Amino acid sequence: MKSLRSILVGVALASVFGTVVNVQAQGLKDVQTPDTPLVLKAQGSFFVGGEKVEQTQGELGDLGPGGHITVNQMYVRYMVPQGADGNVPVVLVHGATLTGKSWETTPDGRMGWDEYFVRKGHPVYVPDQVGRGRSGFNQAVFNNVRTGSAPGGNLPRWIRFSDEVVWPNFRFGSKADAPYADSQFPLTAVDELSKQGVPDVSFGGVPNPNPTFKALSDLASQVHGAVLMGHSQSGEFPLAAALLNPSVAKGLVLVEPGGCPTNYTDEQIKTLATLPILAVFGDHRDTPTGIGIRPSWQLSFESCQTLIGRLKAAGGQAQMLSPTETGIRGNSHMIMQDKNNLQIADLILQWIDERVSKRSGASK
Amino acid sequence: MKSLRSILVGVALASVFGTVVNVQAQGLKDVQTPDTPLVLKAQGSFFVGGEKVEQTQGELGDLGPGGHITVNQMYVRYMVPQGADGNVPVVLVHGATLTGKSWETTPDGRMGWDEYFVRKGHPVYVPDQVGRGRSGFNQAVFNNVRTGSAPGGNLPRWIRFSDEVVWPNFRFGSKADAPYADSQFPLTAVDELSKQGVPDVSFGGVPNPNPTFKALSDLASQVHGAVLMGHSQSGEFPLAAALLNPSVAKGLVLVEPGGCPTNYTDEQIKTLATLPILAVFGDHRDTPTGIGIRPSWQLSFESCQTLIGRLKAAGGQAQMLSPTETGIRGNSHMIMQDKNNLQIADLILQWIDERVSKRSGASK
Repeated sequence: MKSLRSILVGVALASVFGTVVNVQAQGLKDVQTPDTPLVLKAQGSFFVGGEKVEQTQGELGDLGPGGHITVNQMYVRYMVPQGADGNVPVVLVHGATLTGKSWETTPDGRMGWDEYFVRKGHPVYVPDQVGRGRSGFNQAVFNNVRTGSAPGGNLPRWIRFSDEVVWPNFRFGSKADAPYADSQFPLTAVDELSKQGVPDVSFGGVPNPNPTFKALSDLASQVHGAVLMGHSQSGEFPLAAALLNPSVAKGLVLVEPGGCPTNYTDEQIKTLATLPILAVFGDHRDTPTGIGIRPSWQLSFESCQTLIGRLKAAGGQAQMLSPTETGIRGNSHMIMQDKNNLQIADLILQWIDERVSKRSGASK
Repeated sequence: MKSLRSILVGVALASVFGTVVNVQAQGLKDVQTPDTPLVLKAQGSFFVGGEKVEQTQGELGDLGPGGHITVNQMYVRYMVPQGADGNVPVVLVHGATLTGKSWETTPDGRMGWDEYFVRKGHPVYVPDQVGRGRSGFNQAVFNNVRTGSAPGGNLPRWIRFSDEVVWPNFRFGSKADAPYADSQFPLTAVDELSKQGVPDVSFGGVPNPNPTFKALSDLASQVHGAVLMGHSQSGEFPLAAALLNPSVAKGLVLVEPGGCPTNYTDEQIKTLATLPILAVFGDHRDTPTGIGIRPSWQLSFESCQTLIGRLKAAGGQAQMLSPTETGIRGNSHMIMQDKNNLQIADLILQWIDERVSKRSGASK
């Protein structure tokens, strides 16, 4: 674990270089090679869920005749460490306008949480949410509007965040190019984070309820129980997946969730109170985001405090991890990519060891 | 390498089970674990290319104010084997309506070419084409049509192939659920292949020339030279990338390309004649595809024969690999996923060893 001193050195460097961000070209040359090899029992990818639909020639883009395709499937990439049988798997789900890439190599070329959790002995599964990345989306309505068989107003919107919005919304600073002096985000690599952005059709273009909930629950079942970790938009997905099948949700980690539901029934609270739940929030939560539907992340934090209170009152063991309160300052919304990302990962791993593995009798 | 006998056993099984395809559920349970661990010096992901554009609030989906985003970047996942310094890297590019997933775990759970080439000592880089998967696409025009600021006719089309078209187009059989008796494709997993399909906007929704060409050339440069391998739609991409910077294109492998360009200038032919080039085609090429713009893959095969002829006449060493002609029957368009996929990979690896590595002085 990084010392507080090394963190403070990072803070000082951020202060020095804070005004020259957004100019440095990044790329493969900045990607770091670990000191020791990664030994995998297995790696690969597969799909969870999906359903067959029949579409017309026009809906399929008019290259060939109509017929059936699969939609609403969820792509999952996985790595299983060698010699770690019995350890609890961890599923890492990304946020809005992003893909599973969020958890891989950081924008400045350091090890992502996907590999770090594997190196700590956990099988890791990284999906792309249904409707995003390698999971694809249902293109029929877009082609129908193109050919005039549906009005433009039928289109769901595609969301992306501008770089200017990312700065305050992800809390690198109060506004674009004005970093917080203690920011933990690798500010010279903000342009690399910008490349991780993909259009997000989940605001209207994905079925309701989101098929990702069921796919996550089914994935947890297929691996015989898992810690489900969501981030931001998907921060509350582990709760939704657990309610579908609590027996396979071994632990829920809500990393900077957009919000924690405040309308659960007592029955739902009773179910969730049986599970280890951890909410994780970074610093500078009162930064005005510039986004109307979520004026500040402090509101998200408070909704999770409310949920944790209800769960505790029902006998649950939900808790908040806010590194700020232990003197670790400057963590951003993209906490898994922050300069102290492995320090934060260690805190979560410690929680998994104590609250999930020991409880379930897993090796780790 | 699989013996001809084991291939014939596969053929027999395909004949027995050929009529019960499209019904068996697949998933993680079918994913196989290799006998020996995979030891990686490094793995992760990064981006190549991309450019900043300024977009309006509406173009960005109206969640926050307008500003800059990055578009036309190319996502790349990589694995570098331990103890293989000096071996030539291999870049694997996917085809239409697909993503880098094409090269990963096969639909029936066997090892993909990505891992196999790593196990054979080559660093492997797997991109998603610009406009697809984790590379994202430019969503502005879709949001403009949605808000009425552009007509529906402005929309580029999104292509997907129906399962019914995939059967003859990928040459599993003459039509849906009518497999060739000798088909090498894992027919019980056709539904899993269906899940790999994602909408493809490259027919009008990606800049011309496709930014993927430059990104592939830049990627080859960043890794100090690479074998560029394309498939189907991207089968000719290695040629386009090599013409941008022939010095870093150590070898070009065109796997079942949609076609080989027949309009190269003599100057371009002269450049390409300096490079090792291999075209790879499977069996049953005269199957009517059901797609107007490419009635049969035999036409693609013949266009590559024409190109190879021109390259040879210019002193080049281009060649055709058609396993059918050596008695290996039944390979499909998805040859990297066929039951004998590792046997085909061995033939390509042998070519790389002889024509690329020995030529350039690489270890392998």
